[in-house]
Amino acid sequence: MCLMAQPRYTADGQLTLPSDYREWIFLSSGLGMTYAQSMQMAPAFTNVFVNPAAYRSFVSTGKWPDKTMLVLEIRASASKGSINQGGSYQGDVVGIEGEVKDQAKFPGNGWAFFGFGKSSTGKMLPPSEDCYSCHAEHGAVDNTFVQFYPALLGIARQKGTLSGHN
Amino acid sequence: MCLMAQPRYTADGQLTLPSDYREWIFLSSGLGMTYAQSMQMAPAFTNVFVNPAAYRSFVSTGKWPDKTMLVLEIRASASKGSINQGGSYQGDVVGIEGEVKDQAKFPGNGWAFFGFGKSSTGKMLPPSEDCYSCHAEHGAVDNTFVQFYPALLGIARQKGTLSGHN
Repeated sequence: MCLMAQPRYTADGQLTLPSDYREWIFLSSGLGMTYAQSMQMAPAFTNVFVNPAAYRSFVSTGKWPDKTMLVLEIRASASKGSINQGGSYQGDVVGIEGEVKDQAKFPGNGWAFFGFGKSSTGKMLPPSEDCYSCHAEHGAVDNTFVQFYPALLGIARQKGTLSGHN
Repeated sequence: MCLMAQPRYTADGQLTLPSDYREWIFLSSGLGMTYAQSMQMAPAFTNVFVNPAAYRSFVSTGKWPDKTMLVLEIRASASKGSINQGGSYQGDVVGIEGEVKDQAKFPGNGWAFFGFGKSSTGKMLPPSEDCYSCHAEHGAVDNTFVQFYPALLGIARQKGTLSGHN
């Protein structure tokens, strides 16, 4: 694992998916989470990883440093398999998304979102996409949903970095 | 993170919970998984972490080395909170369990199970507990449920280390 991982971009501005993101720090996982009221028919697990350097900085300060990278790994869920009789466990990756803080590259609040699908490079989503406004309005800490990452929420509370609007 | 983490025991044989286990390698998470047919009323998330040295060895060989430590972190689930409208996200830790491979210390197949609850030391569960026989009979790789860790399952398949009985 490279503790000094930095966001890397292709010549046409796509974000490169770090090959070792699964060795980054795991923040949390959800199942079938939705911010709309519609029901999902096939709930997916959503695993969130962050680069270790940004994690360590957050633990010390309750804030995300420049060059923070969050990877959202979306996996299918299954219920019956092997000896499992109920509940849900994880299956194959169905898509990957990324959120990066890079203040020199993304003027404004410094954050940008990328969609990888199943590719190793991800195109930046246009700032008109809902994710930008929703993270800005509802992220408990600096455009991120720390309210859903219980391992970080207490740190942010202690450091006084929670936004009022979550 | 200490890449050379080893199982540590108290004088009375309890396993010490590594303070940095949340910086270990995340294997997978389930929600409300059950091996019995009864329904759970309050489904819990189960996050599984492994020490980095054991992970790297597994990626190379498809097998768990001696001194492998798996930590099962059990967290409450919630559905409505902040802007979330459905599905489940993780809450507080409700308990922690551990599984260790230490061939010098645990004759037989070398594995032992520990219950931490919310303590930083965990008592070894007696070998008569169901977890021992169930993991031995149904673990896809060497007493572990690799069938529920999709990031490892393909590696075990490729290395030919899957047991027939899972």
